[in-house]
Amino acid sequence: MRIVLFGTGNLATRLGIALRAQNAEIVQVFGRSKEAGLLLSGMLGCAFTSLKSEIRLDADLFILAISEGAIIEILAEVPIANQLVVHTSGSLDIGLLSAFSRNYGAFYPLQTFSKQKPVDFSTVPICIEANSQENLAKLEMLAKTISGKVFHVNSEKRRQLHLAAVFVCNFVNHLYTIGEELLSEQHLDFDLLKSLIRETADKVIQFPPHLVQTGPAVRGVQHILDQHEKMLESHPEWQKLYNLLSTDIHHSHNT
Amino acid sequence: MRIVLFGTGNLATRLGIALRAQNAEIVQVFGRSKEAGLLLSGMLGCAFTSLKSEIRLDADLFILAISEGAIIEILAEVPIANQLVVHTSGSLDIGLLSAFSRNYGAFYPLQTFSKQKPVDFSTVPICIEANSQENLAKLEMLAKTISGKVFHVNSEKRRQLHLAAVFVCNFVNHLYTIGEELLSEQHLDFDLLKSLIRETADKVIQFPPHLVQTGPAVRGVQHILDQHEKMLESHPEWQKLYNLLSTDIHHSHNT
Repeated sequence: MRIVLFGTGNLATRLGIALRAQNAEIVQVFGRSKEAGLLLSGMLGCAFTSLKSEIRLDADLFILAISEGAIIEILAEVPIANQLVVHTSGSLDIGLLSAFSRNYGAFYPLQTFSKQKPVDFSTVPICIEANSQENLAKLEMLAKTISGKVFHVNSEKRRQLHLAAVFVCNFVNHLYTIGEELLSEQHLDFDLLKSLIRETADKVIQFPPHLVQTGPAVRGVQHILDQHEKMLESHPEWQKLYNLLSTDIHHSHNT
Repeated sequence: MRIVLFGTGNLATRLGIALRAQNAEIVQVFGRSKEAGLLLSGMLGCAFTSLKSEIRLDADLFILAISEGAIIEILAEVPIANQLVVHTSGSLDIGLLSAFSRNYGAFYPLQTFSKQKPVDFSTVPICIEANSQENLAKLEMLAKTISGKVFHVNSEKRRQLHLAAVFVCNFVNHLYTIGEELLSEQHLDFDLLKSLIRETADKVIQFPPHLVQTGPAVRGVQHILDQHEKMLESHPEWQKLYNLLSTDIHHSHNT
C-alpha cells in the first residue's frame, strides 16, 4: 500500500516515523513548509513536495495529518478519484471527505504528539472509521502494524473522545503551566512538583479518579480555599479557575 | 527520638508506614476514629489512643497529620511544654504552634496520599521549617531517613507550593474525572484515555509545560472550540471551565 502523508507537523512526524519503522511504503510527504517537509521526508526516506500538482496520484492511501481548513482547500485541487483518503482528526466527521473520493475514513491516534519527544506508538489507541467494511479492514490492517490498541469508533464517539482528551491532556498541561508559573514567582523550582504530577497520573491508571480526589476542595476546608483565592488576586483568570474548579469538585463529592 | 503520630488519615497512614520502615520509634498513634486508629497502630506496631489525656507526654516529637481546626482544639488540652511539635500542612504558618510549645516546625511532604495506594517516599520532596537551627537539624535528620529530597522552605514559599500543588494535582485529578464522565456518557471506556494521561505527565517531566502545549486552544481552531462548547451545553459548569481554560491557553500563547 503506497502512502502519501499530508502534513509536516507533530502528528505527521510521529505517525510517519511509526509507520516507516514497520516498513510501511510511504512514497511522498506533502506539506507547505519546505524546511519541515525536507526534514521529515529525509527521516522517512521518501520524496517531498510542496506543490499540489506534484502529489503522487498513483498512491493507494492518502493520510491527511493537516488542519480541516487545509484539507478542504488542498483536496479541492487534487484529482483523487477512488483512492482511500483518511483524516486524522478527532473532531471531523468522515462525511466531509465524501466530496473528494469514493473511499474515505478516519485514522485517529488518541495521543498528544510533540516533535521533541518520541512516542511508543504500540500503546496508543488508534480509532478508525471508514465508509465501507473493505476500507475499514484496510485501515485496521495498517493500524495494527503500529499499535496493539485499535478500535472501531464512529464520528460521534470520536468527537466525544476528542473533547475528553482536551480535558485530560491540553487542559491538564495548562494547569501544569500555571503550577510552574506560581512556583517561579517564589523562585521555586518546577522539579519540586514532578513527583506529585507523576503520582497523580499513576494513581488514575489504577483507580477511578473520583475515588482518589484529594485536597482542600473535596474536604471542604473553607479557610484554605479563601487563602488560596486571596493569593491569586494578581491573577484574576486563575482565581476564577480556582473558584470554578473547587466549587465543581465540592459539588460532585457532596451531592 | 520517640514519636507520637496524630491522625489516622491518608497522610498519617503513608507517613507512619514510611517512618516505621526506617525503624523510627513511633510510640503511639492518636486519633478520633478508633477503627482507623487501631488499624494504623497495628500496622506500625505501636499503641493507640483516642483520649487526649492518654497522649504520651514523654515523647520527643509530635507529628500532627490532622486538620488545622483539630490541631488547635486538641493541643489546647494537651500540656506539651518543650517537646518538638510539627504540623504537616502546606498552608499553615509554623507560628500557629508557638502557643503550644517552645519547639515547633513544619514537616510537609509534597505529595498526594491515598490509603489505597503505596507511595515511594524516597522521591517525595519533604519541605521542612523550624523555629530554631537545632530543631531544623532534627527534622532534617528524620526527613532524610525516608526521602532523598529534603528542602528548607519557609511558610510563605510552602503556601505557594501548596497552591501550585492544588492546580497540578487536585484540579488535574478533577479534569480526569470530567474526562471519565464524558466518556461514560458515550459508553466509552476510561482506559482509552490512560495512554494520553500518562504521556501528558511524562512529557512535562522532560519539557517545560508551556513548550509542549497542544490542542485546539493553542492552535486557535475556533470551529473546534465552538463545537466543543456546544457539546457541553448539558454541563454548564464544564462549559464555563472549557471556555475559561481555552481562553487562558490562547492568551498565554498569543500575547
